[in-house]
Amino acid sequence: MKKTINVGMIGYRFMGKAHSNAYSKVGMFFDPPLLPVKKVICGRTESQLKEAARLFGWEEYETEWEKVVRRKDIELVDITTPNSTHKPIAIEAAKEGKHILCEKPLSMNLKEAKEMLEAVKKAGIVHMVCFNYRRVPALCLAKKLIEEGKIGKIYHFRAQYLQDWIVDPEFPLVWRLRKEVAGSGVHGDLNSHLIDLARWLVGEFEEVVGLRETFIKKRPLPVEEKKLLTGLKARGEREMGEVTVDDSTLFLARFKNGALGSFEATRFALGRKNGQRIEINGSKGSLLFELENLNSLWFYSLEDSPELQGFRKIQVTGEVFPYARNWWPPGHNIGYEHTFVHIVADLLEGIEKGESPSPNFEDGVKCQEVLEAVERSIEKKKWVKIEEVK
Amino acid sequence: MKKTINVGMIGYRFMGKAHSNAYSKVGMFFDPPLLPVKKVICGRTESQLKEAARLFGWEEYETEWEKVVRRKDIELVDITTPNSTHKPIAIEAAKEGKHILCEKPLSMNLKEAKEMLEAVKKAGIVHMVCFNYRRVPALCLAKKLIEEGKIGKIYHFRAQYLQDWIVDPEFPLVWRLRKEVAGSGVHGDLNSHLIDLARWLVGEFEEVVGLRETFIKKRPLPVEEKKLLTGLKARGEREMGEVTVDDSTLFLARFKNGALGSFEATRFALGRKNGQRIEINGSKGSLLFELENLNSLWFYSLEDSPELQGFRKIQVTGEVFPYARNWWPPGHNIGYEHTFVHIVADLLEGIEKGESPSPNFEDGVKCQEVLEAVERSIEKKKWVKIEEVK
Amino acid sequence: MKKTINVGMIGYRFMGKAHSNAYSKVGMFFDPPLLPVKKVICGRTESQLKEAARLFGWEEYETEWEKVVRRKDIELVDITTPNSTHKPIAIEAAKEGKHILCEKPLSMNLKEAKEMLEAVKKAGIVHMVCFNYRRVPALCLAKKLIEEGKIGKIYHFRAQYLQDWIVDPEFPLVWRLRKEVAGSGVHGDLNSHLIDLARWLVGEFEEVVGLRETFIKKRPLPVEEKKLLTGLKARGEREMGEVTVDDSTLFLARFKNGALGSFEATRFALGRKNGQRIEINGSKGSLLFELENLNSLWFYSLEDSPELQGFRKIQVTGEVFPYARNWWPPGHNIGYEHTFVHIVADLLEGIEKGESPSPNFEDGVKCQEVLEAVERSIEKKKWVKIEEVK
Amino acid sequence: MKKTINVGMIGYRFMGKAHSNAYSKVGMFFDPPLLPVKKVICGRTESQLKEAARLFGWEEYETEWEKVVRRKDIELVDITTPNSTHKPIAIEAAKEGKHILCEKPLSMNLKEAKEMLEAVKKAGIVHMVCFNYRRVPALCLAKKLIEEGKIGKIYHFRAQYLQDWIVDPEFPLVWRLRKEVAGSGVHGDLNSHLIDLARWLVGEFEEVVGLRETFIKKRPLPVEEKKLLTGLKARGEREMGEVTVDDSTLFLARFKNGALGSFEATRFALGRKNGQRIEINGSKGSLLFELENLNSLWFYSLEDSPELQGFRKIQVTGEVFPYARNWWPPGHNIGYEHTFVHIVADLLEGIEKGESPSPNFEDGVKCQEVLEAVERSIEKKKWVKIEEVK
Repeated sequence: MKKTINVGMIGYRFMGKAHSNAYSKVGMFFDPPLLPVKKVICGRTESQLKEAARLFGWEEYETEWEKVVRRKDIELVDITTPNSTHKPIAIEAAKEGKHILCEKPLSMNLKEAKEMLEAVKKAGIVHMVCFNYRRVPALCLAKKLIEEGKIGKIYHFRAQYLQDWIVDPEFPLVWRLRKEVAGSGVHGDLNSHLIDLARWLVGEFEEVVGLRETFIKKRPLPVEEKKLLTGLKARGEREMGEVTVDDSTLFLARFKNGALGSFEATRFALGRKNGQRIEINGSKGSLLFELENLNSLWFYSLEDSPELQGFRKIQVTGEVFPYARNWWPPGHNIGYEHTFVHIVADLLEGIEKGESPSPNFEDGVKCQEVLEAVERSIEKKKWVKIEEVK
Repeated sequence: MKKTINVGMIGYRFMGKAHSNAYSKVGMFFDPPLLPVKKVICGRTESQLKEAARLFGWEEYETEWEKVVRRKDIELVDITTPNSTHKPIAIEAAKEGKHILCEKPLSMNLKEAKEMLEAVKKAGIVHMVCFNYRRVPALCLAKKLIEEGKIGKIYHFRAQYLQDWIVDPEFPLVWRLRKEVAGSGVHGDLNSHLIDLARWLVGEFEEVVGLRETFIKKRPLPVEEKKLLTGLKARGEREMGEVTVDDSTLFLARFKNGALGSFEATRFALGRKNGQRIEINGSKGSLLFELENLNSLWFYSLEDSPELQGFRKIQVTGEVFPYARNWWPPGHNIGYEHTFVHIVADLLEGIEKGESPSPNFEDGVKCQEVLEAVERSIEKKKWVKIEEVK
Repeated sequence: MKKTINVGMIGYRFMGKAHSNAYSKVGMFFDPPLLPVKKVICGRTESQLKEAARLFGWEEYETEWEKVVRRKDIELVDITTPNSTHKPIAIEAAKEGKHILCEKPLSMNLKEAKEMLEAVKKAGIVHMVCFNYRRVPALCLAKKLIEEGKIGKIYHFRAQYLQDWIVDPEFPLVWRLRKEVAGSGVHGDLNSHLIDLARWLVGEFEEVVGLRETFIKKRPLPVEEKKLLTGLKARGEREMGEVTVDDSTLFLARFKNGALGSFEATRFALGRKNGQRIEINGSKGSLLFELENLNSLWFYSLEDSPELQGFRKIQVTGEVFPYARNWWPPGHNIGYEHTFVHIVADLLEGIEKGESPSPNFEDGVKCQEVLEAVERSIEKKKWVKIEEVK
Repeated sequence: MKKTINVGMIGYRFMGKAHSNAYSKVGMFFDPPLLPVKKVICGRTESQLKEAARLFGWEEYETEWEKVVRRKDIELVDITTPNSTHKPIAIEAAKEGKHILCEKPLSMNLKEAKEMLEAVKKAGIVHMVCFNYRRVPALCLAKKLIEEGKIGKIYHFRAQYLQDWIVDPEFPLVWRLRKEVAGSGVHGDLNSHLIDLARWLVGEFEEVVGLRETFIKKRPLPVEEKKLLTGLKARGEREMGEVTVDDSTLFLARFKNGALGSFEATRFALGRKNGQRIEINGSKGSLLFELENLNSLWFYSLEDSPELQGFRKIQVTGEVFPYARNWWPPGHNIGYEHTFVHIVADLLEGIEKGESPSPNFEDGVKCQEVLEAVERSIEKKKWVKIEEVK
């Protein structure tokens, strides 16, 4: 029989579902050295939590995260809660010697991220941040081609992450739209992904300048929020709340290696549902990736003979490609949630070896540095060097 | 606690993996009335079977399918073995009163299919054939639009299923290339899917005329085959075997409602990995579906104002769409294997209600009629009416 | 000063416009050995003809084609009239020793085509048939790659030519829908293009089997037709006429070299405006061309390393590519009408050399053989060999 | 007989060819009130000029622009020369009372542009700047949809203009890479187009911040340049010259109406030949245009029912669409050069009416304001308001 590891997961909504699925599937498709046991799931609203525990297949549930973190039988703590809670949970879990998988962005700000990194280092535990797109097989191929020199010197990194789920002004003021819970809007939610991928694929940032906007300033309170919040004035018959995060943040960047970067994240691009689009241009070739078609990578090579040069659509499926080979034959697509299975497979191997795979809390801190530099540049209306925020 | 149902699955390779995954996931995403228990998996090669049982999470394994079928605790028999074995297993399982999920095509030929249908009818059990593409959300949307009259009267059904995995003449003579095991080549493997979808989306066939070819007539025996087969002459140093099935089969069709059909299946279309492409043209609109981009449906509507008419790419993800809504938010893709989860979800509901959801053995028989009419047309080199083969 | 050649063009509508444009532009972009002079344009309706002569820049106009053909100063006769008139004009022009450019299909049937070929051979003049798509730069690249062996042995030729301009039952009974003028419907109009391209890219046909349909059997007479036609019964208040050609014709084919072909032409594919789509699969690679995106060719090569294989979109623009190089820099597209300029450029060179470039009347005859074999197969409801119609 | 207008064109290379073609074709396809006569073409190198005059069909040629501008018979002066010469030619032509069509960007800088505008206003002549993309039918449709409110309030304008023709470090130092002749690199060449389109489609700019880079600092002198330039040191055996313009310029923008803009122009994006890509997101819909597929516009509408929402690809061809309707039936594409025919058609109508169609020198000045604000922002490393450069 294989060794097992008991997991305690804090949070049970969108990410909780994705992570639960990953723990269920990893054994079947990746044969990891440790098999995760879905021991206990944790949340605040018992009725919903209980239902989640049943559906997602967790043995037990618990309404106080502190208890989960302190349970002797729990070896891995998985944090999928809103951003404002990442720090306290992670620091406490580290103190208790638990390994940690934490959703992105790592924290509310750079200061918190540094404290968290210090805590996990001190504890000597294995840690990861769930920037799941690093494990899309098509992006892994992009990384490989860059490392092999197939793209040459990189000139441009052009990244957009476009969504449209809050274009309707009647969409309510959910937690992701409140700064005290989310830290920021699209900047932390979507630009953090782009920054992490840029660091991985291109290298470290030198300086940035940004622009942000909140197009809809007030939104109706969600039903549950009305009970929690106070001090809000009714506008007509509806109670409205202020949107305190960015609907859209764009920035330009210069990388340390001389490449130029263009970044944009928004929730106001109608028709773009999960529209992450990344293009890289180098001296020898180009790459294009689109998340809404995540099984493909477009590659253009100057090494082809002139009459044969063109962007080719590589179907990154089947046995030729890492991660993809664990699933199905060529042309049989994988979906969004598979990236979490890949994260968990590598995390389990990391735990077995005692090493923290990338992206880990170090990467979480560096991402936060860039996020914060962009924010400072917006406030100052000028370029800001990354080192200025360290 | 929810009711459970014990499953015995015969076969453990590609389809065995896909079905095992479906049993694991259905509870988490669809909350079916019965929860499947992966009781026993069955195959002939014990060493491999044992490993599959462990990885896929089956409680027990068994090397003789007859034993599985006769076990009192098994309530659902799932047949994922090569085509030549479908009939004996299904008929025996029906006799034992087990519900049946059978991989496609239902059988080696029409005669077998009819015997199987008779057996399940007589036994009164719930039966399904695993034409999984009927449960791609994008194709479900296609069905809905057709039923709502959005396409109008259908003029054309144009379907291709293109693959390329045996273009290399060195690719060995696997079971799918031998008539005595597979029944036919691409015709039963791929055209069967297209025929099932055509029947579902357009209606019944009237007459057909076909064309087939085996481009590579002899192939090297696979290592394991060399031990099993006898009477083969060595060509040079390698033992070669004859390919006894079609590499490619095309046919034209006329439907009973007057629509025209064009069908093509091949394993010799380089670059097409799982290249199913279906276009439907009607008096009010058109539809296009491509399996390698399975989360989308293209729709053209004559009802749009003239300057706004164009094929639109609908992302069939998120809460608006049946099946898709059980997974992730808009733009977060699902993959190939999810279609099997949808099949199992509906099968479990069918078992609870005592009804056999479509496509079931009736559909399997009707598909076989068309397959066989095409084969007869090829032999006679002329058009053949479906009723001629009944 | 450059030598000139006087052109007399019969016909002045869609094709007359496209050919007039070609004569105007060829000098500027191709520097041919002879400069065409738009001497006289010919048609039956003087008022419209006069306007066309003015707009298209012809020096004179003439309402009787016999006069044009017999004028001493005319050296090249260009036939852009409906199909029923091709034969008499061409044979008379040949007798007069004029070079001929004739629109496709060459004639109403095989018999006529053979007579025309005999006439031009006897006259020793230079002749061409205006299958213009042979001179799309992207298809020229396809031809080159095939000749270089980049595709290997061809297994499949898959061709569709889809349009939608007569889906509306109120669309009137224009000449293209009447057999006595057009010869056939989509078969001669669109399949002729596909057959010509297939012969050029793959080789000669061996046998065919087809299917055709006229979805809308009666249509309102066009205003001008009402005056010309007699013996039609009024249906309600409108005068209707019978559609005597095919709305759609599909066929399967076997080529002499063993390749399989699938062909479809229709005017009932909503959303497809000029939807020619050709895919070729061979033992080493595949090609895909779509006329609605005519500046690109898709190419898949088995010679790429496994992880880099994918359909690449080659932009066939700029100095690397024949014909394209005469126009604009890379990425600056050409349009539909440019193919006629290429035809004329080669025709003028042919005239100077005394050679008939392909496709010429020989190709016109061979195309007609295939068209006619398909028609016979439809009548007989079985496969027909090309040699059976010779 | 129709009225004519005599044209004198300065410059005879890429743009000279495109404009010559426009004068040749406009009569045939647009029936303008005035027919242009290609009277005299002007350039400095007589041998090449003479050849151009012959090929492009100009009656005469002239090596000094001053003479052309002063000829009594010339009524329209067309300026297609390098940017450094626009101002002197235009001002002199205006003094002589000639109408002017000037290539973009209007001038080397804002100061020049203002002087030119003043000159044409004073002279009372008709003037246009050849921002030809305003007359791509697909972008005209975009404009119409925006004006009709189909996109709603605009949130985002996202524009890239990517090329790759100087990625090779051996590509020589042509005039476009020297500041004294070109004024700037991609900024004036490509961003000027994007800015003009943004002003037309979205509105005026409020403020900008930019980033630029010259990736290859020195390049080999072209053969002809070696004779002209002096004072350059040989590096090894080759004479090299300094690239004095930007290879790439990016900027962020805020529009006066609150929309956010992202702009990028580069000649270092391998695989992008003429890769202009513009996306607009509003409160009711989105638009996407790609110049390499210029006959299409993508449109997403929130007004479609939820299950039918998707980006639709509108083929902007055929009689439904302005400009497009003058060419061919639906699905028969036009090319790059057709946009110049549209410009000339409108210019001739403007001359007849005595009005300067947009974009004219006013637009040229406003474009230059934005270009210059971006440059100042780059120098200052901070946001700059457009009014600061006025």
